[in-house]
Amino acid sequence: MKVYNFSAGPSMLAEEVKLAAQRDFMSYDGSGMSVTEMSHRSKYYQAINDEANALLRELMDIGNDYEVLFVQGGASQQFEAVPLNLLVKGRADYIVTGNFASKAYKEAKKYGDIFEAASSKDAKYSYIPRDVSFRDDIDYVHITANNTIFGTRYASLPQTQATLVADMSSNILSEVFDINKFGVAYAGAQKNIGPAGLTVVIVRKELIGTHLPICPTMLRYSTQAEAKSLYNTPPCFAVYMAMLGFRYLKNFGGVAQMQKQNEYKAGLLYDFIDNSSFYNNPVHKPDRSFMNVPFTTPSEEKDAAFIKQAAGSGLVSLGGHRLVGGMRASIYNAMPIEGVKKLISFMGEFELNNK
Amino acid sequence: MKVYNFSAGPSMLAEEVKLAAQRDFMSYDGSGMSVTEMSHRSKYYQAINDEANALLRELMDIGNDYEVLFVQGGASQQFEAVPLNLLVKGRADYIVTGNFASKAYKEAKKYGDIFEAASSKDAKYSYIPRDVSFRDDIDYVHITANNTIFGTRYASLPQTQATLVADMSSNILSEVFDINKFGVAYAGAQKNIGPAGLTVVIVRKELIGTHLPICPTMLRYSTQAEAKSLYNTPPCFAVYMAMLGFRYLKNFGGVAQMQKQNEYKAGLLYDFIDNSSFYNNPVHKPDRSFMNVPFTTPSEEKDAAFIKQAAGSGLVSLGGHRLVGGMRASIYNAMPIEGVKKLISFMGEFELNNK
Repeated sequence: MKVYNFSAGPSMLAEEVKLAAQRDFMSYDGSGMSVTEMSHRSKYYQAINDEANALLRELMDIGNDYEVLFVQGGASQQFEAVPLNLLVKGRADYIVTGNFASKAYKEAKKYGDIFEAASSKDAKYSYIPRDVSFRDDIDYVHITANNTIFGTRYASLPQTQATLVADMSSNILSEVFDINKFGVAYAGAQKNIGPAGLTVVIVRKELIGTHLPICPTMLRYSTQAEAKSLYNTPPCFAVYMAMLGFRYLKNFGGVAQMQKQNEYKAGLLYDFIDNSSFYNNPVHKPDRSFMNVPFTTPSEEKDAAFIKQAAGSGLVSLGGHRLVGGMRASIYNAMPIEGVKKLISFMGEFELNNK
Repeated sequence: MKVYNFSAGPSMLAEEVKLAAQRDFMSYDGSGMSVTEMSHRSKYYQAINDEANALLRELMDIGNDYEVLFVQGGASQQFEAVPLNLLVKGRADYIVTGNFASKAYKEAKKYGDIFEAASSKDAKYSYIPRDVSFRDDIDYVHITANNTIFGTRYASLPQTQATLVADMSSNILSEVFDINKFGVAYAGAQKNIGPAGLTVVIVRKELIGTHLPICPTMLRYSTQAEAKSLYNTPPCFAVYMAMLGFRYLKNFGGVAQMQKQNEYKAGLLYDFIDNSSFYNNPVHKPDRSFMNVPFTTPSEEKDAAFIKQAAGSGLVSLGGHRLVGGMRASIYNAMPIEGVKKLISFMGEFELNNK
C-alpha cells in the first residue's frame, strides 16, 4: 500500500531523492564505497559538502556576507548556541509562539537578560502576536518562523532594528525568505531538508566570533565557519541526502515554485476544513501555517478513531502532538498534492460515517 | 573494481550491513517508509532505538548501573561534555597520547583545574606512558583508549582509584573491555559502529546529574538519559545502521570473536612490516594498535607513490593523517582479512619495484 506520511518530522522525502540514495548506496559516483562509510576528507565527500553548500546558497539566494554551516545537535542545540554566540550586550528579546519557541526562550535565560516580548500562550498559541515592542540595546530578537505543533507561521516579520534570529526548522525552503532580514536562521534538517541528524545554520559573518567565553567549541559558529563545516567528522550521509534534496528542489523550479505548490496544498486542506461543520482548525486565519495543519473532529473519541482508520488507509502519523491532541497533517515540501487530496477524500468519508 | 577502504573514519561497513540498509531503504519493515523519513516517535523507530541499545549492552556486557546514550556531535563534543558533566571537585587528570587526547585535554582546561599527568609527545606519541601517578582528589582520569593517528593502544589500563573516562572512538567493540572499570566510555560511531553522525556514551548512572550549571542542556548526560536518547530528534538513520552493525557483530560471534580476528589481521600486517627492511612502523611494540597501523617507506616520495598506486589497485585512503604523513592502514572490525592480505601483497610488490 502506498503510504503518505504526515509526520511533523522526520517527514517524507521526495521519491526521487530516496531512489537516488538507494541506487548509489553501495557505490557512490564510481567510488566503490557507500557515502555511509567514506572518509569525510575524501574528494567524494568534499564535493558533496561543497555542492550542498552551494545549492542551498543558490536556492535561498544567500550572499557572501553569510556563512552556511552544517552542524549536529538539532534546533534544540541551537536554542543554546544562539545566546552563547550572540549575547554581547547580554540582552535579547523572544516572541513565544509555541512549545519550541518557549524552549528556546527558557534555554537562553541561562545565559543573559532574556525578555519575553510577546506570547500567544493566552490563546493556546493560536495566533502570531502583532506590533510587538522590543527593548532597546538588545543583541537580537528571536522568533520561531513556523510553529509545528500549533500550526502558525509569521506572515510578516516583526519590525525591529535589532538582529533577527529565526528558528526555521519547519518552514525553511517552503517559501521565499529574504535572508538579508535575518542575522541567523537555523533549521533541523528533518522536515524540509533531509534526514535527521543535520542542522543548517545560516549566519551573517559579522556575527561570528563574538561568542561568550563559556561557549563550548563545538557550539561556536566560528569553529565550523573556519573549517567549512569539517572541523570534525560531519553527518556525511545526512548532508549527502540534503544535497540530493536541494538538487530536486532546484529541478522542481526552486523555492518560489515550491511556495506556490505549498500554498495550493494548504489551501485545499484549509478550504475543506472551513467548509465543514465537522472538522475544526483553531488558528487565526492570517497566521495559518502552510506546513502544519492541526484539526479536530467534534470529540476526542472520534479523533482517536480518525487517526487509527487513516493509518489503515495509508495516511500515517496524523496524530497531533502529545501536548495538544487532535490531528495534525504536516504537509512539507515532499508531500505530494495527491497525498493531500487523498487525506481530504478520507476526511470526507470519515465525516459521512461519523456525523 | 572491489575497493578496500583503509580510511581512519568514516570507514568500511560490513557488506551485509550495507546490503540490508539498501534493501530496506524505500520501505522499512513493511512500513512503506524509509528510516530516513519516519517519525522518531513511530513504533518502528522506537523498536530500532530499543534494539540498538539492548544489543550494545549485550555485546559489551553493560549492566543496569550504566546508561547507554545515543547523542550527536562526535567525540569532539564529548571533549567538552565530559568535564562539564563530571567536574564536581573541579579537578581532573589527563594522559596525552596523541592529537585527540591533546584536544580533549585542552577543551577540559576551560572548565577546571586540569593536569597533564603524562604525555608521550617527547617521542612523537609512539608509546603509551606507563606507571602514571595521578593527583589526589580528582574527579576523573581521561585516556584515549586507541590513538588513530599514531597507532597506539592501551594494552593495560592505568591504575587509579579515580573514575576512569575513555575516548573509545577507534577501538570500541574491537576488543573485550570490562566496562565496569570505566565511569564513562564514549565513541564516535564512524569507525566500529556505523555511519558518522552518531556518538555513543556509556556512563555509570551515579555520574549522571552532577553537571556544572553552565553545561548546556544538550550536553548534559541527564537530558538524554531521562529521555532514553529521545529528548529531541535523534540521528535516526545512523542509529538504525548501528543496530544493523550490532546484529552483524552478534551473529559473527560477539566482541571476543571479533577481537581474535582483529589480532590476527593486525598480526599479519605488523609481521610483514617487521620482516621488511623497506617498511617501518615507529610504535613501541607492546603499545601497537590493532586498529590503525601507520607505516612509512624509506622516503616521502615513495610514500606518495605508494598511496597513489595503492588507490589505483583499489586500496584507498591509505594516506597518513596530515599531521604525520606516511601511510596508515585502518583495519577496523569491518575490514575483511582479504583486504589486509591484499594490502600486504601490494606492499610486497611495491617494495620489489622501488627498492
